Amino acid sequence: MSTFKNPNPDYQHLLPSSSSWKPTITSWLNEDIPSFDYGGYVVGSNIQTATLYCKSKGILSGIPFAQEVYDQCELTVEWYYKEGDLLDPLTTTTNGKIAIAKVKGPVKNILQAERLSLNIISRCSGITTHSNSVLTKARSVGYNGIIAGTRKTTPGLRLLEKYSMLIGGIDCHRYDLSSMVMLKDNHIWATGSITKAIENARKVCGFSMKVEVEVDCEKDAIEAIEAGADVIMLDNFTGDDLKIVANNLKKKFNNSKSYLLECSGGLTLDNLDGFLCDDIDVYSTSSVHQGCSIVDFSLKIDKTND
Amino acid sequence: MSTFKNPNPDYQHLLPSSSSWKPTITSWLNEDIPSFDYGGYVVGSNIQTATLYCKSKGILSGIPFAQEVYDQCELTVEWYYKEGDLLDPLTTTTNGKIAIAKVKGPVKNILQAERLSLNIISRCSGITTHSNSVLTKARSVGYNGIIAGTRKTTPGLRLLEKYSMLIGGIDCHRYDLSSMVMLKDNHIWATGSITKAIENARKVCGFSMKVEVEVDCEKDAIEAIEAGADVIMLDNFTGDDLKIVANNLKKKFNNSKSYLLECSGGLTLDNLDGFLCDDIDVYSTSSVHQGCSIVDFSLKIDKTND
Amino acid sequence: MSTFKNPNPDYQHLLPSSSSWKPTITSWLNEDIPSFDYGGYVVGSNIQTATLYCKSKGILSGIPFAQEVYDQCELTVEWYYKEGDLLDPLTTTTNGKIAIAKVKGPVKNILQAERLSLNIISRCSGITTHSNSVLTKARSVGYNGIIAGTRKTTPGLRLLEKYSMLIGGIDCHRYDLSSMVMLKDNHIWATGSITKAIENARKVCGFSMKVEVEVDCEKDAIEAIEAGADVIMLDNFTGDDLKIVANNLKKKFNNSKSYLLECSGGLTLDNLDGFLCDDIDVYSTSSVHQGCSIVDFSLKIDKTND
Amino acid sequence: MSTFKNPNPDYQHLLPSSSSWKPTITSWLNEDIPSFDYGGYVVGSNIQTATLYCKSKGILSGIPFAQEVYDQCELTVEWYYKEGDLLDPLTTTTNGKIAIAKVKGPVKNILQAERLSLNIISRCSGITTHSNSVLTKARSVGYNGIIAGTRKTTPGLRLLEKYSMLIGGIDCHRYDLSSMVMLKDNHIWATGSITKAIENARKVCGFSMKVEVEVDCEKDAIEAIEAGADVIMLDNFTGDDLKIVANNLKKKFNNSKSYLLECSGGLTLDNLDGFLCDDIDVYSTSSVHQGCSIVDFSLKIDKTND
Amino acid sequence: MSTFKNPNPDYQHLLPSSSSWKPTITSWLNEDIPSFDYGGYVVGSNIQTATLYCKSKGILSGIPFAQEVYDQCELTVEWYYKEGDLLDPLTTTTNGKIAIAKVKGPVKNILQAERLSLNIISRCSGITTHSNSVLTKARSVGYNGIIAGTRKTTPGLRLLEKYSMLIGGIDCHRYDLSSMVMLKDNHIWATGSITKAIENARKVCGFSMKVEVEVDCEKDAIEAIEAGADVIMLDNFTGDDLKIVANNLKKKFNNSKSYLLECSGGLTLDNLDGFLCDDIDVYSTSSVHQGCSIVDFSLKIDKTND
Amino acid sequence: MSTFKNPNPDYQHLLPSSSSWKPTITSWLNEDIPSFDYGGYVVGSNIQTATLYCKSKGILSGIPFAQEVYDQCELTVEWYYKEGDLLDPLTTTTNGKIAIAKVKGPVKNILQAERLSLNIISRCSGITTHSNSVLTKARSVGYNGIIAGTRKTTPGLRLLEKYSMLIGGIDCHRYDLSSMVMLKDNHIWATGSITKAIENARKVCGFSMKVEVEVDCEKDAIEAIEAGADVIMLDNFTGDDLKIVANNLKKKFNNSKSYLLECSGGLTLDNLDGFLCDDIDVYSTSSVHQGCSIVDFSLKIDKTND
Repeated sequence: MSTFKNPNPDYQHLLPSSSSWKPTITSWLNEDIPSFDYGGYVVGSNIQTATLYCKSKGILSGIPFAQEVYDQCELTVEWYYKEGDLLDPLTTTTNGKIAIAKVKGPVKNILQAERLSLNIISRCSGITTHSNSVLTKARSVGYNGIIAGTRKTTPGLRLLEKYSMLIGGIDCHRYDLSSMVMLKDNHIWATGSITKAIENARKVCGFSMKVEVEVDCEKDAIEAIEAGADVIMLDNFTGDDLKIVANNLKKKFNNSKSYLLECSGGLTLDNLDGFLCDDIDVYSTSSVHQGCSIVDFSLKIDKTND
Repeated sequence: MSTFKNPNPDYQHLLPSSSSWKPTITSWLNEDIPSFDYGGYVVGSNIQTATLYCKSKGILSGIPFAQEVYDQCELTVEWYYKEGDLLDPLTTTTNGKIAIAKVKGPVKNILQAERLSLNIISRCSGITTHSNSVLTKARSVGYNGIIAGTRKTTPGLRLLEKYSMLIGGIDCHRYDLSSMVMLKDNHIWATGSITKAIENARKVCGFSMKVEVEVDCEKDAIEAIEAGADVIMLDNFTGDDLKIVANNLKKKFNNSKSYLLECSGGLTLDNLDGFLCDDIDVYSTSSVHQGCSIVDFSLKIDKTND
Repeated sequence: MSTFKNPNPDYQHLLPSSSSWKPTITSWLNEDIPSFDYGGYVVGSNIQTATLYCKSKGILSGIPFAQEVYDQCELTVEWYYKEGDLLDPLTTTTNGKIAIAKVKGPVKNILQAERLSLNIISRCSGITTHSNSVLTKARSVGYNGIIAGTRKTTPGLRLLEKYSMLIGGIDCHRYDLSSMVMLKDNHIWATGSITKAIENARKVCGFSMKVEVEVDCEKDAIEAIEAGADVIMLDNFTGDDLKIVANNLKKKFNNSKSYLLECSGGLTLDNLDGFLCDDIDVYSTSSVHQGCSIVDFSLKIDKTND
Repeated sequence: MSTFKNPNPDYQHLLPSSSSWKPTITSWLNEDIPSFDYGGYVVGSNIQTATLYCKSKGILSGIPFAQEVYDQCELTVEWYYKEGDLLDPLTTTTNGKIAIAKVKGPVKNILQAERLSLNIISRCSGITTHSNSVLTKARSVGYNGIIAGTRKTTPGLRLLEKYSMLIGGIDCHRYDLSSMVMLKDNHIWATGSITKAIENARKVCGFSMKVEVEVDCEKDAIEAIEAGADVIMLDNFTGDDLKIVANNLKKKFNNSKSYLLECSGGLTLDNLDGFLCDDIDVYSTSSVHQGCSIVDFSLKIDKTND
Repeated sequence: MSTFKNPNPDYQHLLPSSSSWKPTITSWLNEDIPSFDYGGYVVGSNIQTATLYCKSKGILSGIPFAQEVYDQCELTVEWYYKEGDLLDPLTTTTNGKIAIAKVKGPVKNILQAERLSLNIISRCSGITTHSNSVLTKARSVGYNGIIAGTRKTTPGLRLLEKYSMLIGGIDCHRYDLSSMVMLKDNHIWATGSITKAIENARKVCGFSMKVEVEVDCEKDAIEAIEAGADVIMLDNFTGDDLKIVANNLKKKFNNSKSYLLECSGGLTLDNLDGFLCDDIDVYSTSSVHQGCSIVDFSLKIDKTND
Repeated sequence: MSTFKNPNPDYQHLLPSSSSWKPTITSWLNEDIPSFDYGGYVVGSNIQTATLYCKSKGILSGIPFAQEVYDQCELTVEWYYKEGDLLDPLTTTTNGKIAIAKVKGPVKNILQAERLSLNIISRCSGITTHSNSVLTKARSVGYNGIIAGTRKTTPGLRLLEKYSMLIGGIDCHRYDLSSMVMLKDNHIWATGSITKAIENARKVCGFSMKVEVEVDCEKDAIEAIEAGADVIMLDNFTGDDLKIVANNLKKKFNNSKSYLLECSGGLTLDNLDGFLCDDIDVYSTSSVHQGCSIVDFSLKIDKTND
């Protein structure tokens, strides 16, 4: 851990004005308290402090979203760590937890914010942590290209999950269907040829967007490159075939065309290194964010002289 | 698989009128297509069919939510399986996939619905499957009581996730902060005593709600039961202590009081059987729904020989 | 009045974070000013103060909601009374009005907030006042059990109306269809028996919720109690029959079962005492909140001697 | 009842496209079923019919809003009566109830729609009925002018309540602050004179809107009329003074000016006839809609040969 | 320019509480930044200032809406000019631009607010400027009556556009379909006669609203006036016919009836003076706000010692 | 005109599912009818037809949005023309208008839909028409590259306006701040150098997005190309300088780098040809959509033999 250095503590500058996603946070608060807060009546509104602890190893992320939860519950927060910091409570502390923030305000408000802020930060940090472990593995075997995610994010949480990937060092890949155009077999089949599909896409997406084409053989990859595709996705190749085709393509076009090669399909932390080679520019996989574990956080009221 | 019987194919009757959650599904569609659908222009709007396949073992759930995605994209669907059906494509088919539904409509609409419907159904089925595996483990060692989830659900997806637990045979536990009142150490500390906290809670929650009290020793459990708590949560006990205290309480009150005993804190699929005993009525754990893997689904356009 | 003591000045701790219901208050402001505020142009934005007066006898409630109206109109408020305080301007003042708050800000903002804040506070206080008069009547004839409301609230105002009942000393009863399960004749008829209906309900509502069964004869009440219902509603009995059946049930089960008896159906302030008896735990009636009169409030700009 | 004739069965043509207020109805359905509908699971989705009964005397209104509730719950309805029809179940039937509509669809959907549709129709009909009784009283003593309501409506329900007044024969008065400009003492005091306040209002409200001025003496009424006010509100006059001032004004301006005289302030069903006189064009009172009783309706599943 | 005097710097008092239209501004911010702000990451969040410049001749308007954009982006603003001020950078400055405000805050926030605030202020000022030029033309040929706009505004921007007309000295005409009733040929044709249509309209719009009738011949105008219409719109007359008919009507009713005459249909800045005459009270035209040019503004970061 | 051929009648396939933008259309309907539709009561709900006419020369666009207005008002429509068709009523008809659609349904619904549908279609067609005229001018002087719009669209109408440009043959340029990254002088100044700014942008925007850099001299353009920018914007050059610099750059990099050259700043229909040259790939200008005139449409009820 001593060797880990937070590469991008300022990634929160990527987020739009919080007025844009405030209503989403509000709807999440409403989801948890649709009518009365009976416990809130029991504890009342004396001003107290609480500590946010990290209790399992991981890379912290999701602070701006947790902050907004606290803001909406009229709490002030002091953060002791930053987005992208590595936390390892089990090996670096004696009590197994690291205090990462201090929250202050009416005790009922602290309890209203507790579950949602934890649900957010544990999921964001989970994705960042898993993303980073995939990246680290690739780097450890000498691959210096791009590892990217996919659009297989949880509905309603794309901003949080793409952001969490980024902090983990993973390229977001296209954000949504309105970003980079991707032409898959259905699109090509519907228009009749790769060349025709690319031509149609360009008519509407214009000069400012990239066009990617998914292919499953070298011949189609060549057609796509010659038709001007910006990215070629080699889909569901075996590791060996992938390396051969990628090398053939790089040799054939040898700087005469500008394009990237992407490999996709079934990649995981476990099988990734069977596919890595320098001729591929991008490896994309939903395994960096989908179905991965959380990092464990808790929020405890600070009890004074009791 | 031949021995698995879908216990509750009609759980979708639990859902409120779809007009209530239509706007959420709409916002999720918007999240994926904020502006133009360039690929939609490429494929056009010829009427085609597509097949929804299951590609990994799991229990199917999330149909009503996927159906709403298809409805909003003006597609018709015929489902071949029901909520709660077990699917095992790897051992029961030769091509590793089971067709679970047929979708029909304009090809661009099929592609617009594809990612969101898959994201929903893969997450719902993942939770149902994992929930059911925890339940099955408990039953396999002879425990016949309740296994319940928690409020640690993904923000914005509580309805989907609580529903998915239910289909997996898991009790939802309290749905939100406005459901059953739970008095934790903070509430008790703020009011001065367990008895006072219960009294205050009753004043506002009324006769129609249950009150649960979290305790960490037998003495407090006794105070809570005598003060009229409906559920006593024994929190973070070791397996051995838990069994002793639960047995003491059951003997002491032997039907003279109506209450349930719940065990919570760090339970997982792996350590669960060290805690199971008949004196505990409910075991609750977020491990049935938080950070668990997805079930793999895909949607493929049916290509006809034209 | 000198004997009235505000029992619960802190009930506003029951409310969720105001961020949750801010948009509702905003939509109410919009309802009253959909486009221009011509009068606002006429008066301008000099800073002035206004006094909120109570002009008829009643118990004050609705302050948190009125406060939010003032907040959204950028006004500051100083309240002289608290939720639950009894106000009796006609007998305790010479000019027939009690100043309950001072509002300060741009005069056009004061006039924008005027109607909505009064509409809210007059309705809330009206419900609290009527609720309390029903409770007082029951206590005056020696009944010490629970008087509860119903779900027959004004659409969109359930939070305000249930809250106003609570301040008047009335139990909220179940908040909505997702709270305590109530099985009425339709549910029982649809499943075939009381026992079967309770069993089905338990499967989905789980251990954390109560199940109530509506019955119209002693035999059905017995079946419901034996099947484990938490609350038995004796519906539309005559006062005499009610007392006999309730007494029979209490004798029969004499602590061997844990359940509550509720009486419902056509109860009003006028006929209530013909039904009251100690064997009934809960009397529920929509007459405490539906169609009841308002308390009269007004807001007047303070004119300074210029 | 035989003498009552529904004057305006087509008032629902006044309503905007239902797409405009659909989201409000949806939010009201959500208010009653925030998460699961446990009872819905118990009864299931067999197709059944239910009858909507009227059980107390009143004039029916609110059908379009109830219809939208049934539409959103996917139920079909056949209405036997129309907006504005007088219903008198207690004197015209032997069982004390009149069937006013037949509702058909899945039984769980019928129960989901039940409470909201009844809450709407009972409040709308209550206002229509009370409005009409005030109008009838005025007509019975020979007054043929206008009886109007106020803006003191329930927050969020202005459309329903103004509409219900209209069906009862009551003039809506201004709909909101953006409708007819009303200059009260605050506006006049802020600008320095009635004449100046009217002049300022005209600058912004333009030629298409009316301007009303509230006065408390004859002199101010004269100034307002001469300055071009369209409506003069004589506020809080005694009945005798009112008649004298109104007559003086009518004689003084004898057709040389176009304006209306309105009387307001504390009018109720009981004291109204002490104020009525032919020189007043409009009497306005919130007593036609605020704090008035409901009409009683219920919805019962039709049980077939069981 | 030295002769131009801002007649109404306080028109922003016409606007409802900003809480009412905040969500619209938020949705416009979201439209421009649906996911990440990559440029925001590049510039970071150092505190800087920027200057808002006017670069073409026009009358400034839209400040309250631009202010809300800056507020939501957490920027402070100092305005050097007021709503309704005439700006003429090309003739009054040497560098062709006038600094109209100073904006301060994190540099990424300034860039997020830039485009939306400029889009708003350039459109509002464009309408105000064009509206004022039409008014000025009418005044220059001696017409002292009313020039009014129409409902042909940009969807979603009616508040901004009606407000911008007002600042330009133009009467807003009816704000929407729920304001003044306008009976056109379709309404009259559907009811059978002008008199019947007016009678029906009065039944529902009540005493507080005006009724306008559109006619295309003198005979119909007479019927409308006699039936009590408040405004008569002479639609699509030639300039000569218009003047004759208007004069005939004024002579015929010579103060015995209270009504206004409006001329509408195809009026523009160029043809207006062929229609102007003193017998017409109101000329309405969408040309004051529809399809008119913008005023040019820009926002530049102030670069210090670079 | 006989030579005009609609190049892309199917551009509506670009739009997302209408469920996504339905709420916007609903909010626009609400804007025009906030409360009652008095005229709707007058005309009633008989089924009638109406004809949508084009009355000035232009290219039709906006059909999908107008269609949604008619759908929400429960009207059926038959369209006689398609998106992108050129309409020239003044030279091709004797009565100066072309029937472009037939609308059918309740007459009050037709009148509710009238203004909004016309406001939409007249603005969309106006932008398409003006966009096409700029394109046509460029083609007429032999330029075959790209003409593109900007982000200076009307707030809330970006989807409609970008779509209207596309139909007119204009490239949309980047859709919003989250699309192609554009680094302007502020970004470069904040990071210290063009190279550093591009490097930072790449870190977050990833491989799927393009990066454009705005420069004002040849030296900076060279740095940007060498640092890997995808698009170089030559900003505010004179026409002559532009041509020289563009030619120098093309010669210098002669296929060794992949990039596009864009010219921007003050281009209009009138001055465009002074800037056109083959070395520039893209000319962008807000003049194709901002402040341009509308095309005139009207909707008339078809009156049958009356």
